Amino acid sequence: MNKRRANHCEAYVSHGLGLFTDLYELTMVQAYFEQGMRGEAVFSLFSRALPQRRNFLVACGLDTLLDDLEAFHFDDGDIEYLASLDRFSPAFLDWLRDFRFTGTVYAVPEGTPVFADEPLLEIVAPLPQAQLIETLVMNQMQLQTVLASKAQRMAAAAAGRRVLDFGARRMHGFDAALKAARAFHVAGIAATSNVLAGRVWGVPVAGTMAHSYVQAHDDEREALRAFAQTFPDTVVLVDTYDTLAGVRKVVDLVRSGEARIGAVRLDSGDLLELARASRHLLDAAGLQHVGIVASGGLDEDRIAELVAADAPIGGFGVGSSMGVSDDAPNLDIAYKLCEYDGRGRLKLSSGKPVLPGRKQVFRSLRDGRAVGDVIARADESLAGEPLLHPVMRDGRRLHTPADLDALRTHAQESIARLPDAVQALEAAEPGYPVSVSAALREHQQQVAERIRAGQ
Amino acid sequence: MNKRRANHCEAYVSHGLGLFTDLYELTMVQAYFEQGMRGEAVFSLFSRALPQRRNFLVACGLDTLLDDLEAFHFDDGDIEYLASLDRFSPAFLDWLRDFRFTGTVYAVPEGTPVFADEPLLEIVAPLPQAQLIETLVMNQMQLQTVLASKAQRMAAAAAGRRVLDFGARRMHGFDAALKAARAFHVAGIAATSNVLAGRVWGVPVAGTMAHSYVQAHDDEREALRAFAQTFPDTVVLVDTYDTLAGVRKVVDLVRSGEARIGAVRLDSGDLLELARASRHLLDAAGLQHVGIVASGGLDEDRIAELVAADAPIGGFGVGSSMGVSDDAPNLDIAYKLCEYDGRGRLKLSSGKPVLPGRKQVFRSLRDGRAVGDVIARADESLAGEPLLHPVMRDGRRLHTPADLDALRTHAQESIARLPDAVQALEAAEPGYPVSVSAALREHQQQVAERIRAGQ
Repeated sequence: MNKRRANHCEAYVSHGLGLFTDLYELTMVQAYFEQGMRGEAVFSLFSRALPQRRNFLVACGLDTLLDDLEAFHFDDGDIEYLASLDRFSPAFLDWLRDFRFTGTVYAVPEGTPVFADEPLLEIVAPLPQAQLIETLVMNQMQLQTVLASKAQRMAAAAAGRRVLDFGARRMHGFDAALKAARAFHVAGIAATSNVLAGRVWGVPVAGTMAHSYVQAHDDEREALRAFAQTFPDTVVLVDTYDTLAGVRKVVDLVRSGEARIGAVRLDSGDLLELARASRHLLDAAGLQHVGIVASGGLDEDRIAELVAADAPIGGFGVGSSMGVSDDAPNLDIAYKLCEYDGRGRLKLSSGKPVLPGRKQVFRSLRDGRAVGDVIARADESLAGEPLLHPVMRDGRRLHTPADLDALRTHAQESIARLPDAVQALEAAEPGYPVSVSAALREHQQQVAERIRAGQ
Repeated sequence: MNKRRANHCEAYVSHGLGLFTDLYELTMVQAYFEQGMRGEAVFSLFSRALPQRRNFLVACGLDTLLDDLEAFHFDDGDIEYLASLDRFSPAFLDWLRDFRFTGTVYAVPEGTPVFADEPLLEIVAPLPQAQLIETLVMNQMQLQTVLASKAQRMAAAAAGRRVLDFGARRMHGFDAALKAARAFHVAGIAATSNVLAGRVWGVPVAGTMAHSYVQAHDDEREALRAFAQTFPDTVVLVDTYDTLAGVRKVVDLVRSGEARIGAVRLDSGDLLELARASRHLLDAAGLQHVGIVASGGLDEDRIAELVAADAPIGGFGVGSSMGVSDDAPNLDIAYKLCEYDGRGRLKLSSGKPVLPGRKQVFRSLRDGRAVGDVIARADESLAGEPLLHPVMRDGRRLHTPADLDALRTHAQESIARLPDAVQALEAAEPGYPVSVSAALREHQQQVAERIRAGQ
């Protein structure tokens, strides 16, 4: 076999996503297949703990996941590759050839804040199906949830000023960059520099200019003039050589009528001092209408500092820190079997508890503010708003995709309902109260006892 | 426009990658277009600094990037979307419609260790072309270089024991997971659980079983027996309920002749203690041939500890830490204009120096060991091995893709030539010596003076 001529760009599509799975999913499913274990299973996706300095996560990724579950299949080349591994039986490979996901999915809406142990989604399907999609479900839900959760912190720190996603170049690949722009927008980021995300998701696109543009001209003033001529009222970068000298050139160009400029961008140095000095120069020249945008190594703490110091900055361009969620690039996310064939299931492995059976999360509000969640059995009816809703039945999504603007609004409103300390950047002490219902706790104990007795 | 019905799975392919760019690349290129600035540019890709606790990076990602550069174009839908933004002129959009990359690329071979400021690649092309591909080049080269660099540390820590990539579920999306498996293999990881990577890259695939398999059975012993019946000599997971009780069931199954089992996997608890106790149980039963594999929250430090303690573990399954390079998920990577129209270019922004002009890196060896690098002008002939080689001309790759095994060998050999302290997990003090040639330093000063005089 030619090792790499299978086109990597097309791998996601032509391979039908079926091979985007860990090998052990396929080996386990063949074992289930041979043992006739096709009973109904319930799997739960949840985060065992929140990352440090995170008081909640912003659930994200459901919409694209549902599309992927509808599309998930194995093509002829996939089957041929699997056959070449000499591990799988012809009967099993035939079964894979016809594989389609026909299960039911319950999920919290995208943009909803969730806490440790709370299911982001639960999947009810024949065991082999629910098993095979594990890698896909975890990879995609974690990606967008990690990124939305980080982005929400940027938006919160900016306290109403615009935050722009400039991070595609330092994200992890095409898929991450494309879905990041969507997750960021849901979480409150105003726009993205990623043009593909503009086309695919309709996220507003934004951008300024790079140092290379200024460098390529022999004269900085001429570079700024030429750019503003092509794009009147644009944002120009002023720190290529000397930031304040750059601002003076902008002043000169605008006052002489040679250019219309919307804002200057600062990308290095002490952003607070430079923003103040730039504002002073612009104001002194009567250019109150020319704004200031800052970028360069920004994260939520730096943005919060600048906002607290009342820096005259109207927008923040954020790259690497948000793009990979640098302080918490992954979650302790788990996709765990919690019921099979009508019986609750769990593990007894140290430090990795599982809540058995299908579940619901009830969020209680008081005076319009969330005061606590209860994780309960799915058939309980407790006070509060239930967070998990059916979103897919028989392998078909139940709703057309939610409008991104509606998801943004939902995220903003449901985060605003959290206690103030939970909305803060620092860890809340104590954190948001999440408890397990008496009935679920009792069920967990019963299952644990049954397992201990059986071993 | 329907905001999301453009299929996100197909976005990478059908859109021809052209829109995988930051908006400012397109606005700058339209400005270049209108000003007739189509002279030859040189851009250099390098990391300004190494992450903490990294003594070098492992260059990776070139092969897939060259494919992407050959494929890069704008399709009709891309042009239509760009037109809808009301920023671009019809003449410019027509020019984009015919866009193809026709430049020359010089690069260090994949698997080569590189240091701060050393170009991983340099691109020589008409300015608009070299500018438009910036986002693609940075995103793809950073992704694979970050991941290969982290994986190399895992392999080094394991000191010859096998390291397996189990991380797809916690990586950032499809593209990251697929390319990670390739980068990891180049950097010394033995195999991956990612089946798609097996098909696309020919990376060996490996896998065991999950807790869910055991949980789905009412009896753990029966679960292990059934799995080993389908897959004789496989690896079985023993920590679902009680690790050592699980090992005793394995002993019982093997000794009774009911199952052939290759190894047990430990995935929780104190791995050193459990490995020793498991080894003791297995050996006492005469099962010296049954191995032990460990997983669960492993990183290079934990692996090094286990190896130093001579833990009886034959292989390590690694997930999240390697999968996102959790201690350094991104690089301070930059793609900078260093020459345009025959003149060296740089920035004077604080803390972000650029070395002007096309460059070469010479690595000096003494007694078969690397003793220092010199970053020089491309036309210099200094002592040592030149690291940058032409890999693409006129937009066409010069070589068929390198065999992954050859890249693995190259990586292993060139890393083994580094000083011992540089190969260690801890930061070497002083680090590996990298200097700038007198001629390049002089050129840098001349360019800086020319720019200062001109502003």
